[in-house]
Amino acid sequence: MPKRRLMTPGPTQVPEPARLAMARQVIHHRTPEFRAVFAEVLLGLKYVFQTENDVLVLTSSGTGAMEAAVVNVAPRGSKVIVLESGVFSRRWAQISERFGIQAVRHAVPWGQAIEPADVERLLAEHPDTVAVLGTLMESSTGVGHDVQAIGEMVAKTDALWVVDAISGAGAMQCLTDRWHIDVLVVGSQKALMTPPGLAFLAVSDKAWRQVERATPQAFYFDLKFHRDKIHGAAGSDTPWTPAHTLIAGLGESLKQIRAEGIEAVWANSALLARATRAGVQAMGLEVFAARPAEGMTAVRFPAGIDGKAFLKRLEARFGVKLAGGQLELDGQIFRLAHFGLVDELDIIATLAAIELVLDEMGHAVTLGTAAAAASRVIQGKPADADK
Amino acid sequence: MPKRRLMTPGPTQVPEPARLAMARQVIHHRTPEFRAVFAEVLLGLKYVFQTENDVLVLTSSGTGAMEAAVVNVAPRGSKVIVLESGVFSRRWAQISERFGIQAVRHAVPWGQAIEPADVERLLAEHPDTVAVLGTLMESSTGVGHDVQAIGEMVAKTDALWVVDAISGAGAMQCLTDRWHIDVLVVGSQKALMTPPGLAFLAVSDKAWRQVERATPQAFYFDLKFHRDKIHGAAGSDTPWTPAHTLIAGLGESLKQIRAEGIEAVWANSALLARATRAGVQAMGLEVFAARPAEGMTAVRFPAGIDGKAFLKRLEARFGVKLAGGQLELDGQIFRLAHFGLVDELDIIATLAAIELVLDEMGHAVTLGTAAAAASRVIQGKPADADK
Repeated sequence: MPKRRLMTPGPTQVPEPARLAMARQVIHHRTPEFRAVFAEVLLGLKYVFQTENDVLVLTSSGTGAMEAAVVNVAPRGSKVIVLESGVFSRRWAQISERFGIQAVRHAVPWGQAIEPADVERLLAEHPDTVAVLGTLMESSTGVGHDVQAIGEMVAKTDALWVVDAISGAGAMQCLTDRWHIDVLVVGSQKALMTPPGLAFLAVSDKAWRQVERATPQAFYFDLKFHRDKIHGAAGSDTPWTPAHTLIAGLGESLKQIRAEGIEAVWANSALLARATRAGVQAMGLEVFAARPAEGMTAVRFPAGIDGKAFLKRLEARFGVKLAGGQLELDGQIFRLAHFGLVDELDIIATLAAIELVLDEMGHAVTLGTAAAAASRVIQGKPADADK
Repeated sequence: MPKRRLMTPGPTQVPEPARLAMARQVIHHRTPEFRAVFAEVLLGLKYVFQTENDVLVLTSSGTGAMEAAVVNVAPRGSKVIVLESGVFSRRWAQISERFGIQAVRHAVPWGQAIEPADVERLLAEHPDTVAVLGTLMESSTGVGHDVQAIGEMVAKTDALWVVDAISGAGAMQCLTDRWHIDVLVVGSQKALMTPPGLAFLAVSDKAWRQVERATPQAFYFDLKFHRDKIHGAAGSDTPWTPAHTLIAGLGESLKQIRAEGIEAVWANSALLARATRAGVQAMGLEVFAARPAEGMTAVRFPAGIDGKAFLKRLEARFGVKLAGGQLELDGQIFRLAHFGLVDELDIIATLAAIELVLDEMGHAVTLGTAAAAASRVIQGKPADADK
């Protein structure tokens, strides 16, 4: 069996100190000891998200936190604008409609990015919008959005800017406060290098004022219960029993991010993104996203290659696990992450593996081209050696 | 710092194979490898719960699974009967009311058990009840309920029998199918010896028929999404990214339970319950619950002892962590678990520690009495040596 190389946009590899922390014997969570760990985690999350807003920790997947965001800010019968560019941003509309909230869907073809000007127009057409629901890194297509520009449009109105950064936060620049993000939603199993099971919300004062207006269609996900507990007299706590071994692991991964510095983390993802794109293009493949995210790259399979067979072969031959496309994109693209523990050599090796398997499957490639192009980018040289 | 001895009714100690499984490097969960682990876990849960019904795995605390049970079986405007005997059964009413469901509250004083005859009367008075919401082991008071007798009453009607067995399942006998439990709710961090973060629902065919009648006030917790995924063509799966490292740990703990045999696990809890009660009573203390559960014991502090100071001292001196009382019972009782990894010597040692600290605090005890009484029960001898 080949060595495993997990290169998917979540779950992602977890550093050893985090894994060992999660193997420690369980302690009780209603203790000063847990509250100290939790307080450090909240500080670390604020740093990664670049926010002074309240950060809340839910025990759920990212979808649970998306639901929490929607049902707390948008009462039944209210209106939201959904910026739909893939599987995950479409989920905003599905959640909203399930709870009787009107979703004005603005959909672009998958692989395209939302234009900030369209958001401005939609807000003018729908002045009763309570929230605009969008995505930082749409991980089904590899698109990275201009969250800052959209945030500036939304900030001029009473609407809230609610951003799914489940896989994006920590994988690419995200300045929550400066970009006017009112509710940021993040998952543990992506750039935060922790197993799945935790999700986070950063909630602005503007959002809290909206939350205060109604009783939410929520109990487990009632954000006011969470807010009260993080500001508890005895220290920060959670309203329900949290997945506290995962919180202990997260604490270790956050230490690693803080030691590296969040700007360095973003710069690393951005460099690996450029190297990946150079390598992919050197093989003659096409980057799928019109506006690629810095945390991941989606690539269209070349004509004549059976995408599913390719991914199976890549895993069987080299242990490299990439993600395929979802729903309409099934068999059309592959998706590759460059955040978290992924480094330069992982990218070079993955590109080489892709090239080798394409070669085996009869696709015309010149072996070594992708690694060479990526190496030149990593070294700060032009991607194409002939230039 | 003294050796730690976690004796609370959740979280509970996690066996080493489970802890090591959770420290393994993360794998992707949309794989045959994860589905094989998940399928084994579902079989193990069915065995522990003694059910052929669908078992669903949520990534949430037990409260999340309680909400899932309520919102899936009871549409807005419908009526449920809540059997309220403590903090946790009261939560059934809070959740129901939050979602616009009428909760007929039948409350008994804390420490008392619900009488099955009262449930029969309430069902006759409220023939439009869609569900009766109760508790196996009310862990705030230590009461164990006659879930079987209540189930027989409920089974004669169209209502569903929904049981919070979050801490009870695996800690005391629970025959889901034979006792007509339509929705069983269980948490990972109690007798299943896994950290918090997972919750389970066992759903009967009668319950599914009710679930089918309406679209639930739920998305993340929509049980139909979960049902469709566990019966997926490629094998059992989850609709949202699950806390899969916790599932891997749970798999190991379930192996341990299966190796021991569920009847032996229940018998062990029952024996430890009798030993604990004998030891407590030998010290002249009073068991709080009128109908004590087999998985835990709640004990009233003797007059003149400051309960909070006692618990602090017990932990500082011997590392023994017991739970105090909640809300109205704060400072009135302590609570002690005897399920999971807790064994005979843990109980004897804990009773001795309680006795020693009571002695230090000036309460009249004869040192060794509690250990002697518990030892006699463990050995199958009368609790009182003089008899």
